Amino acid sequence: MAVHGGKLQLQTGGDGEIVDLTEGVAAIVRTAGVVAGLATVFVAGTTAAVTTMEYEAGAVIDLREALERLAPQGHDYEHNRRNQDTNGHAHVRAAAVGPSVGVPIVAGGLALGVWQQIVLIDFDTRARERTVMVAIVG
Amino acid sequence: MAVHGGKLQLQTGGDGEIVDLTEGVAAIVRTAGVVAGLATVFVAGTTAAVTTMEYEAGAVIDLREALERLAPQGHDYEHNRRNQDTNGHAHVRAAAVGPSVGVPIVAGGLALGVWQQIVLIDFDTRARERTVMVAIVG
Amino acid sequence: MAVHGGKLQLQTGGDGEIVDLTEGVAAIVRTAGVVAGLATVFVAGTTAAVTTMEYEAGAVIDLREALERLAPQGHDYEHNRRNQDTNGHAHVRAAAVGPSVGVPIVAGGLALGVWQQIVLIDFDTRARERTVMVAIVG
Repeated sequence: MAVHGGKLQLQTGGDGEIVDLTEGVAAIVRTAGVVAGLATVFVAGTTAAVTTMEYEAGAVIDLREALERLAPQGHDYEHNRRNQDTNGHAHVRAAAVGPSVGVPIVAGGLALGVWQQIVLIDFDTRARERTVMVAIVG
Repeated sequence: MAVHGGKLQLQTGGDGEIVDLTEGVAAIVRTAGVVAGLATVFVAGTTAAVTTMEYEAGAVIDLREALERLAPQGHDYEHNRRNQDTNGHAHVRAAAVGPSVGVPIVAGGLALGVWQQIVLIDFDTRARERTVMVAIVG
Repeated sequence: MAVHGGKLQLQTGGDGEIVDLTEGVAAIVRTAGVVAGLATVFVAGTTAAVTTMEYEAGAVIDLREALERLAPQGHDYEHNRRNQDTNGHAHVRAAAVGPSVGVPIVAGGLALGVWQQIVLIDFDTRARERTVMVAIVG
C-alpha cells in the first residue's frame, strides 16, 4: 500500500461557479491503480470549497442561492473593511462548507452514488486558477 | 498496513431523519482489527449527509430545524421546477453539510468524544435505503 | 507506510473562539517524517468544529457572525429545554460545520494555500479544554 498524490489545475469564473471534479479525480484513481482505498479531495485556498452534489443545472442554482442567503455578498464584512477587500462573503461560505471530502475507493472506482459528483465551488469575486490536491491511499 | 472496506445498509424514513451510525462503524473497525488508523465514513447519494453530534432528542430536533431554516422545504427550487421534483431543499442541505467525516482510530476504537456520535441525516422526502461506505486505513 | 497518531491539547475561551491549529498539525507531520500522505484533523466533542480559513481578524469576526445567524444563541432550543442547558446553538453549529478536515501532505508539508490555516471553532458557552486528534497516513 502507498499514498499516491494527484493534482488538478483548473480555471473558474469565480462568483459561486460550481465545477464538476469527478472525472479528474477518477482519472487520478485509475492512474494510481488502487482497487480498494480512500480518495481525499482538498482545495488549496480560502475562498473555495469542496463537497458532493447532483451536478444538475437546477440544483447548482439552488445551492448557490442558499449559500448567498447564508452569507450575502452585500452584507457588511469586517474582512472587507479591514483589508479594502470585496470577498468577505466568499471567506465565510468557504469555511462553512469546508475544503475537503473523503470518498472510499471500491473495485477500482469512487464509491459515489449514481447521481453524485465531487464539486468545487469557487466563491471568489473574480476568475481564479485553482489547485485541487488529491491524496489516494490504497 | 492495509485499507479495509466496510459497508452499512440502512432504512431511513427520510424527511430529515437522523440515524446514529456509531455502533455500525465501530463494528467495522473491530472487524478490521486496526489499532491505530483512520476511519472515513461516506454516504453515497445526494440528499443525505454525514456529520457528528450528540445524538440526543433535543439536539436532533434543533439541528433539523436549523437546516430547515437554511434551505426551507417550501422555498421555490430550480431543481424542483426543472425536474418536476420535490426534494430541492434536500439537495441543498446535503451539499452544505457534506457527505463524509474522518475519525482517527486510537487504541483500537474511534477517537470520538464521550457524547459524540457519527450520524447520517436523510433529507429526502421519502423513505430511502441508504448505503454508507467506511474506509479503514491502518 | 504507516499511520502516525498525534494529539493537540488546547484551552479555548469558548463562545465562538477560533484557534489556529496549523503550526501544531505541521509539527505532528514533521515528527512523523511523512513526505507524501494525508493528514486528517478531528476534534473530539460535540460543540466544536474544524475547518480551514484565512486566519485574519476580520474574517474571524465575519465567520462567527454568520454562524450566529445560522443558529442564534438566543433562539429557543429543545436541547436547552430538555437538559436545562444553554449551549443548544453550539451543538447545531458544530454539527453543521463538521468535526474533521483532510489535508494532503506534499513534499513533507501540508498542501495548504498560502493564506489557508486549519482552525478549531469552539462554540461552547464556556472555556473548554479541547483534544484534537491528528491521523497521519504516509
